[in-house]
Amino acid sequence: MTDESQTRNNTESGSRRRGRSGGGAAARRATRQSGGTVKFPAISRMIKPYEVLNEEGLSIIEANAETILQEVGIEFRDDPEALQMWRDAGATVDAERVRFPKGLCRNLIKTAPAEFTQHARNAERSVRIGGNNTVFAPVYGPPFVSDLDNGRRYATIEDFRNFVKMAYMAPAMHHSGGTVCEPVDIPVNKRHLDMVYSHISLSDMPFMGSVTHPDRAQDSVDMAKLVFGADFVDQNCVLINLINANSPMVFDETMLGALKVYARAGQASIVSPFILAGAMSPVTIAGTLTQILAEAMAGMAFAQLCRPGAPVVFGTFASSISMQSGAPTFGTPEPSLVLYGAAQLARRLGVPFRSGGSLCGSKAPDAQASYESAHTLMPTLMAGVNFALHSAGWLEGGLVSSYEKFVMDCDQLAMMQKFAAGVDLSENGQALEAVREVGPGSHYLGCAHTQANFETAFFRSSIADNNSYEQWEAEGSQTADRRANMLYKKMLADYEGPVLDPAINESLIDFIKVKKDSMPDAFT
Amino acid sequence: MTDESQTRNNTESGSRRRGRSGGGAAARRATRQSGGTVKFPAISRMIKPYEVLNEEGLSIIEANAETILQEVGIEFRDDPEALQMWRDAGATVDAERVRFPKGLCRNLIKTAPAEFTQHARNAERSVRIGGNNTVFAPVYGPPFVSDLDNGRRYATIEDFRNFVKMAYMAPAMHHSGGTVCEPVDIPVNKRHLDMVYSHISLSDMPFMGSVTHPDRAQDSVDMAKLVFGADFVDQNCVLINLINANSPMVFDETMLGALKVYARAGQASIVSPFILAGAMSPVTIAGTLTQILAEAMAGMAFAQLCRPGAPVVFGTFASSISMQSGAPTFGTPEPSLVLYGAAQLARRLGVPFRSGGSLCGSKAPDAQASYESAHTLMPTLMAGVNFALHSAGWLEGGLVSSYEKFVMDCDQLAMMQKFAAGVDLSENGQALEAVREVGPGSHYLGCAHTQANFETAFFRSSIADNNSYEQWEAEGSQTADRRANMLYKKMLADYEGPVLDPAINESLIDFIKVKKDSMPDAFT
Repeated sequence: MTDESQTRNNTESGSRRRGRSGGGAAARRATRQSGGTVKFPAISRMIKPYEVLNEEGLSIIEANAETILQEVGIEFRDDPEALQMWRDAGATVDAERVRFPKGLCRNLIKTAPAEFTQHARNAERSVRIGGNNTVFAPVYGPPFVSDLDNGRRYATIEDFRNFVKMAYMAPAMHHSGGTVCEPVDIPVNKRHLDMVYSHISLSDMPFMGSVTHPDRAQDSVDMAKLVFGADFVDQNCVLINLINANSPMVFDETMLGALKVYARAGQASIVSPFILAGAMSPVTIAGTLTQILAEAMAGMAFAQLCRPGAPVVFGTFASSISMQSGAPTFGTPEPSLVLYGAAQLARRLGVPFRSGGSLCGSKAPDAQASYESAHTLMPTLMAGVNFALHSAGWLEGGLVSSYEKFVMDCDQLAMMQKFAAGVDLSENGQALEAVREVGPGSHYLGCAHTQANFETAFFRSSIADNNSYEQWEAEGSQTADRRANMLYKKMLADYEGPVLDPAINESLIDFIKVKKDSMPDAFT
Repeated sequence: MTDESQTRNNTESGSRRRGRSGGGAAARRATRQSGGTVKFPAISRMIKPYEVLNEEGLSIIEANAETILQEVGIEFRDDPEALQMWRDAGATVDAERVRFPKGLCRNLIKTAPAEFTQHARNAERSVRIGGNNTVFAPVYGPPFVSDLDNGRRYATIEDFRNFVKMAYMAPAMHHSGGTVCEPVDIPVNKRHLDMVYSHISLSDMPFMGSVTHPDRAQDSVDMAKLVFGADFVDQNCVLINLINANSPMVFDETMLGALKVYARAGQASIVSPFILAGAMSPVTIAGTLTQILAEAMAGMAFAQLCRPGAPVVFGTFASSISMQSGAPTFGTPEPSLVLYGAAQLARRLGVPFRSGGSLCGSKAPDAQASYESAHTLMPTLMAGVNFALHSAGWLEGGLVSSYEKFVMDCDQLAMMQKFAAGVDLSENGQALEAVREVGPGSHYLGCAHTQANFETAFFRSSIADNNSYEQWEAEGSQTADRRANMLYKKMLADYEGPVLDPAINESLIDFIKVKKDSMPDAFT
C-alpha cells in the first residue's frame, strides 16, 4: 500500500543539493539509490568500540547490579497489572517494590533481538538498530527554541515542523526523531497527533511515537498502521519510543503505560535511566553504571513480559551535576566514562544501546556549546552507540532546540560518519605509487593519485571557514553561529518534502480530526 | 647549584589560587608538594590507547615505509657531514639522496630510550616523556596574537611573556613550551635569547630550545647549562626541541644543524614530519602514515648516529587541506585517524610520540574553533600521545596565539586529565552502600557517600556557565569567549613568578648581553 510513497521522491531538490555537502562516493551512492535528497545511510562502523572497563570491572558492576535487583529492588508505581506480571514471573513484590531473583531479568532479556530494523515509509531510509550500526536522531524534548534573530522563546508547531524539515535535509541525520521541540501552542492532549503527522508528512525517515500517556502511545501506533498497514506494524518495528526510568529505581505509571502499548504492539522501547549523577545516582562512575544497569535490565525485562521478542534498547542519559550549584553539567569526563562503560554492559547483554548525542549546558551556540557537544558526540560514536538521540540541536541542558546549533551539529555528524569508516588499506589507500611518483621535495597536489582521489579524500565541512583571515574579514568576520544562521535559513528555503500517498494523507487527517474532536483542549 | 631555585616557590600566589580550580585531591597534593601554584602532575593515563589499525594494517604500513626508505630514499640537504655519517652507517648516498638498507633505521633507533625525563629547574615540575604519560605544552610558532579587546596583531615579547605566565598559572599545563608566539619586535637573530630567558625566569617548568639556526640551538644549550650545570646537562635531558622534516622526504640544513647540536648535547629531539595531507603527503590516511613513518625513522635514526642514546620523540603534525581551496583544515576525521595510527607505529618502534593539540582553522574563539580543537585534543589523549604541543592557544591554523583560546583550551586540558584517570573500581567507587542507603524514589544529594565524595567527584570547568538562563542573561549573556577574556586578565593579574636564584639570573643576563652585543640586529 505504501510502495508509491516509498519509492517516489522529489528529484528536483535532490539535484539541487547534489555535490554541496562533503560525502563523496557514499553521498552520491545514497542520492542515486534514493533518487532524492542527498542522504547518508546509517553508519556502519568499521572502527572498534573503545572500552574503559576490563573483564574484572564489568563483572563487578554486573554482580552489583544483580545485588541491587535482589536486595533493593525497583518500584513499579501505580500499575497493579505490572506488579502481577512480575509476581507471575517469579519476582517478589512488596507493596510497589519488586525484587528479582538473581539472573531473572538477564534471562528474560534473552528473548529481545540483538538488532532490529526500524522501517521508514521510504524503504531506503529504514535503519538497522544494533550491532555495528549508529543511527543519529535529533534533539528530543525542549520546550524552547532559539535562533540568533529572535532569541529564546517557547516552541510552536511551526518550529516543530521546521526541525523535522531540517532533519530531512541534513545528509548525516538518519532519523526524524520524536519531540524535536514541544509545540506548546497546541493543547497538551492533542499535540502528539500533530507531531506524529509532521514526521510522517514532512519526512520519509523513521520516527518516534508519543509516550506522555498510554492513549497517545496507542494513537501513535494507530497512525503508523494507517501508513504501513496493520499487519505490517504487528510484525515489524515502525516506531521507536523513549521510556525513561524515574531514577533512582522507579518506573512510573505513564512510562509503564506507554511501554506496555508499544511492546505489545511489537514496537521498540528505549528503556532509559535518566541520570544526573550525584542527584539520581551515586557520585561515582562505577556506582552510576551499576544503577543504570539494574534499572535498564528491569525495564527491558518487563518489555519482554509484555511481549517476548519485542525490540528493546538499553538506553541511558547520564550527565553530572555541579556539586556547588546543583546545575546539570555536560561534556565533562565522568559522563563520557559512564557512556563508554554502559555501552560495554549493553553489548554483554546482547541488546542495542542508546546514549549520547551533542549535549551541552551552554545558553548560546558558542565555544562552550561546541566543546561540550564534541565531548559527548565523539564518545557516542567511539563507544558504539546504536541509537543517538539528541545528536543535533540540543542547547541549554535540553531546554532549547537551537536552529543554529542544529546545523552546526549536523556538520559534526557528517564528520563522525567519515571517521567511522576507519582506515582504507586497499592498494589505492596505501598510495605507495603516489610516493614513488612524487619523491622528495616535491608536492602531491597534481599527482595522478591525488587527481583520482581528491573529490572524496577529505571531509568537507558545511560550516567551517578555512579561508584566509583577510577574506574572512572582508566577508564580515562571521563567527560559526552566524554562518549557521544563514545555513539553516537556506535549508528551510530549499526544503521540498517527500511525496505522501494522498489516500494515506487523507486517512491520517481524518484520524486526527476525529481524535481532536473527541475531547476538549487541555493545556496542563 | 640549583637546589634552592628548585625547591623555593612563591607560596603567596599558591595560597591565593588554592581551591579555585577543580582538581580535588590531586590538585591539593600537587599544591602541597610544590609549595606553590596549583599544578597537576603530567598525566599518567589509566585508560588504554585507542587503536584504528590491526596487526595486518600496521605490518603493511611498516613494510611500505621500508620500501620508501630503500627505493625512494630521503634527502639530507646542504649537509655533507650528515651524508658522510649515513655512508659510514651503511646507507647509499646519491647526491643528497640517502637510501637505507632494509631495517637500518629501525635498528639504529633501538639505542633511543623508550621514555625519558625532561628536567625542570623546579624538580616537582620535571616531566616523564613516553610510556603512559601525556605532557601538555602550549601553542608553538604563531607570528600573531589576538584577544577580543585588541584584535589580531603581530606578537611582541610582551605577548610572549604573557603566554609563558599563563602556562605557568594553568593547572593542567605541564610544560612551558617554546615559541609560544614569535616576538617580532625583537631582531630575528636575537629573539631566541629573550624567549629562552622568559621560559627560565617567568616559569619553573620544562621548556624548549631554539631550532632556527645551529648557533641558536647552541645558545639554548649554553643557557640551560647556566641553570642546571654543564655536567648535569650532558647527562640529562633539560631541553626538548622541535625538528620538523621538510615533507615530503627532505631534511634541510637548518633542522639538521639544530638536531646535531641537541643530539650531541644529549638533549631531546622531536622529529616531526609536518604534513598537510594532499600537499605534502598522499591524500589517503594509510599513504600519509607510511610517509610519516619513513621520515620520522630516518630523522630519529640520524639523531642516534649523532649520539647513540640521545632522546628522540616520534613526532607528527598532520592535517588535511581543502581540496577546493588548498587551505589547511583542522579537526577533521582524516587527521584523527592519522594521529591514532601514527601513535600505534611509534609504540611499535619503542619511542615516545608527539602529535595533536588543540588545533583549529577558525579565525575566532567560536564554535568552529572549539569543535575542531576538541576533535584534535580528544584523539591526542586517547591515542596515547606523550608530548602534546599546541595543546592550548592555537587559533587560525597556527597563525595566531589567542589569549581567550588559551584559557578555554586549558580548561579542556584539565578535563582530559580527569578522563585519563579512568573508572575507579574501589569499594568507594562501586558505591553499593550509597544505593542501599538511598533506595528507590529518593535522591543522593545528602547521602553519606555523596557528602564524602562531592568535592572531588566531578570535573569543574573554569569557563563553562551552567547557571540558569535567567542568571546568565542577568550577567550580560556572556558567551564563552567573553568569559575567557575576563579569565585570562585575571590570570595575568594574579601571576606571581617563581623565585630564580639571583646568581643564575645574573649569569643569564650577562650571557644574553654578550651575545646580543656580538652581532648586529637582523630582521629577516
